[in-house]
Amino acid sequence: MVVGVGLHPFGRFPDKDLSALAIEAVLPALKDAGVKWKDIAIAYFGHVYYHGMSMGETTLSKLGLTGVPIVNVENACSSGSTAFWQAYWGITTGLYDTALAFGAEKVPRGPVTVTAEDSPERYIGGDHMMAGYALRSKRYMEETGAPATALAQVSVKARQNAAMNPYAHRKDTYTVEEVLNSRMIADPLTLYQCCPTSEGGAAAVLCARENLADYGIDESRAVSIAAAVLTSGDYNGRGADHSAFSPYRTEPAALQAYEMSSLGPEDVDLVQVHDAATIGELQQIESLHLFPFGEAWRGTVEGRTALTGDVPVNTDGGLLAMGHPFGASGIRMIHETVTQLRGEAGPRQVANARVGVAQCSGAGDVTTVHILMRG
Amino acid sequence: MVVGVGLHPFGRFPDKDLSALAIEAVLPALKDAGVKWKDIAIAYFGHVYYHGMSMGETTLSKLGLTGVPIVNVENACSSGSTAFWQAYWGITTGLYDTALAFGAEKVPRGPVTVTAEDSPERYIGGDHMMAGYALRSKRYMEETGAPATALAQVSVKARQNAAMNPYAHRKDTYTVEEVLNSRMIADPLTLYQCCPTSEGGAAAVLCARENLADYGIDESRAVSIAAAVLTSGDYNGRGADHSAFSPYRTEPAALQAYEMSSLGPEDVDLVQVHDAATIGELQQIESLHLFPFGEAWRGTVEGRTALTGDVPVNTDGGLLAMGHPFGASGIRMIHETVTQLRGEAGPRQVANARVGVAQCSGAGDVTTVHILMRG
Repeated sequence: MVVGVGLHPFGRFPDKDLSALAIEAVLPALKDAGVKWKDIAIAYFGHVYYHGMSMGETTLSKLGLTGVPIVNVENACSSGSTAFWQAYWGITTGLYDTALAFGAEKVPRGPVTVTAEDSPERYIGGDHMMAGYALRSKRYMEETGAPATALAQVSVKARQNAAMNPYAHRKDTYTVEEVLNSRMIADPLTLYQCCPTSEGGAAAVLCARENLADYGIDESRAVSIAAAVLTSGDYNGRGADHSAFSPYRTEPAALQAYEMSSLGPEDVDLVQVHDAATIGELQQIESLHLFPFGEAWRGTVEGRTALTGDVPVNTDGGLLAMGHPFGASGIRMIHETVTQLRGEAGPRQVANARVGVAQCSGAGDVTTVHILMRG
Repeated sequence: MVVGVGLHPFGRFPDKDLSALAIEAVLPALKDAGVKWKDIAIAYFGHVYYHGMSMGETTLSKLGLTGVPIVNVENACSSGSTAFWQAYWGITTGLYDTALAFGAEKVPRGPVTVTAEDSPERYIGGDHMMAGYALRSKRYMEETGAPATALAQVSVKARQNAAMNPYAHRKDTYTVEEVLNSRMIADPLTLYQCCPTSEGGAAAVLCARENLADYGIDESRAVSIAAAVLTSGDYNGRGADHSAFSPYRTEPAALQAYEMSSLGPEDVDLVQVHDAATIGELQQIESLHLFPFGEAWRGTVEGRTALTGDVPVNTDGGLLAMGHPFGASGIRMIHETVTQLRGEAGPRQVANARVGVAQCSGAGDVTTVHILMRG
C-alpha cells in the first residue's frame, strides 16, 4: 500500500541542488506516512541527468546511515515511476516490509533531446521531443478530424486544474485562443501545448498491508496498489512506429494492469497520464481504453476529462502545468492519485474517487501503468 | 543460477559507443547460456555517465522489441553489480524465469571524481578518488607496518594474472621496483598501483534452477548464486569514517552474505574484490574476513593471494589490470568467477575452485557481495 506521499514544489530553484529537491520531498512523505527513516527497508531513487554518482545514497545519507539497499534507477521520463514500480516489487514479493520511492530532476532549459550529444540523431534534429509530438498531432488531426481547438482545450483544462494546486510550476489560466496564439514551438504545437522544463522532487512510502500495524500506520489513509506494470517497446500490431513517441506503447501495459487488478477502464474514477504535449494526453487516454481510439478529443471538448467530467484526467495540472522533472513526474502522479483517493485534494477533489490510474511514458519505449485503489 | 556470461574486452574503443560495448557483451552471454533474447523476461543495465536516456532499452532494441521490463541502474562503481543483484532478485522471488544483467561504461580519461562539477568537494579537491586511496594507504602502512613493496606486490600479481587474460586492458607485467618507480599519482600510490580508466562491457544471464530444462540450458555449466547482498553505508562501530573510500563498508555486507549462504570465509576458493588501487584489495580481503585485519599485506607478500596460493584474489587481473568501466566491472567479476567455477579459465585456472566471492564497492557507500558456487 502507499502510506505516505510528499512533493517538493515543481518550478525553478536555482539555489537548490538535486539532493535538496529530493530530500524535501522525502521528509514530508515520511511524515505523511508516520514512519521514520530508520523504518525504511529499501529505497529507489529516479533521476536522469548526471549530478555525480550515487545521488540517492548521497541524498539519504543526510538522514543518517542505516545500511539498507539504495538503488538509482533511470528510465527517461519514467524514471520516477520506475522507482515506484521497483519499490512496489520489493513489498509485494515479501522481501521488505517498507520501501521508499523518490525522484528529483533539474531539467536544463531549452529543447529536450533524448540522445547523447554526439549521436547521429542530434545532427539530423530527429530527436527533438516536440518535433515528434508535432508529427503525432498532425497525423491525429488528419485521421480523426480533431480541430486545433480540441488540442488547445487539453491545455486549458490542465491550467485550470493547476490553478488549484500549490505545487504546480505554472498556475496561470488561459483561453483556447490564448493557447493557440502562444509562440509556435513545432507546428501545430504552440508553447502552451508543451510542458515546461522544470525542477522538483516527489516521494512515496510503501508498506505491506499486513505490516501497517507494526509501524503504527493509519490504515484509513493508506491506498492499495492494485496493479504495477512496466513494459518496454512491444510490437503489438498497431503499425511499425517504434519511436519513443508512439502512444500505442501504452496499450499492452494497460491491458496487463487491468488484468493484474481485475479492474477495467469502466472502473477508473480518475487518471494521470503522460501529457508532455497536449496530443500525449489524448492518445494516452485512448491507449488506456478510457475513450475509443480517435475520440478522446471529442470527450475533451465535451468536458468529460475535466474535474467534473466522468473521466477526470490530470487533475493536478499534469506535465503541462505541473512541469516535468523527469525523475519526479511518475511519483508526482502517484502523489496526486493518493491525494484524490484519500479525498484530500481540496478544491480540485474529484467526487467519489475510488480507483485511480497513473500512466507514464519514457524514451526507450518504457511505459508504466499503476492502478491505485481506496481501501 | 548464472547460466551464461559474456565480456567485451576492456580497454579503449574510441570508435564504439556505449551501446556497442554493451551489446557485444550481451550476445556472447546469450550464446554461452544457449538462450535466445526472446527468452529473457527482465533486464537490468548498469552504467554511470550520461550517454542519452534509457540506454539499456536503446541497446536491447537492436535485438528486437519483446516488451519485457528493462531498467537502467546506477550505483557508481557498483552499477554493474547492482544490475546483477536486481536480476538475481527477479529470479529468486519467482517473478521471472530468466533475467539479463549487463553493464558498460566509457570512463573519460583523467582523474575520476564522484561528485557533480559544481559541488563544493570539487573546489577543495576532496573527491579525487586516488587522493582518498592514498590517505588510506598511508594509514594502513602506519598501522600495520606494511612496506611499500607489499602494496606494489598487489599490482605485480594483478598484472601477472592479466597477462593470461585476453580481455584485460593492461597485459604487461612489472617487477615490484617498476611498480614503485612508475609515475607518482598520490603519494604513496604510483601509476601502476591505480586502476586505469577504461571502456568495456559485461553481461550475465540468470535462470531459476527449476526452469533450466524449459530453456534447454546445460545444467552442468550453470553456477549457483548462494548469496546476493547490497548495502549502503552503515555505522558498524569501526570508526566514524563515512567516506566512499572506507573499506569497512564491506564487512556488514560480507557477514550478511556468509549468513545467507551458510558458507564462511574458510569455504572461499577464490575472490574478486574492488581493487581500484592496491590498498583496496588489501582492505577488502580483510573486510571479507579472508585475512585478519592488518595482515593481508603479509599474505600477499607470501604469495597466498596468487593463483597458486590458498586465497587467490582477482584472478583475472582485477580493476588494476582489467581496467574499470564502472557499469561493467561488477559483472566482469561475475564473469571471472563463473569461468573459474566452471574450470574454464585456462592458464589462470584456480585448482578445485568450488566457491567464489565477488565484492564490489561504490561511492555512496554502496557495497555488493555475491557468493557463487559450483553445482
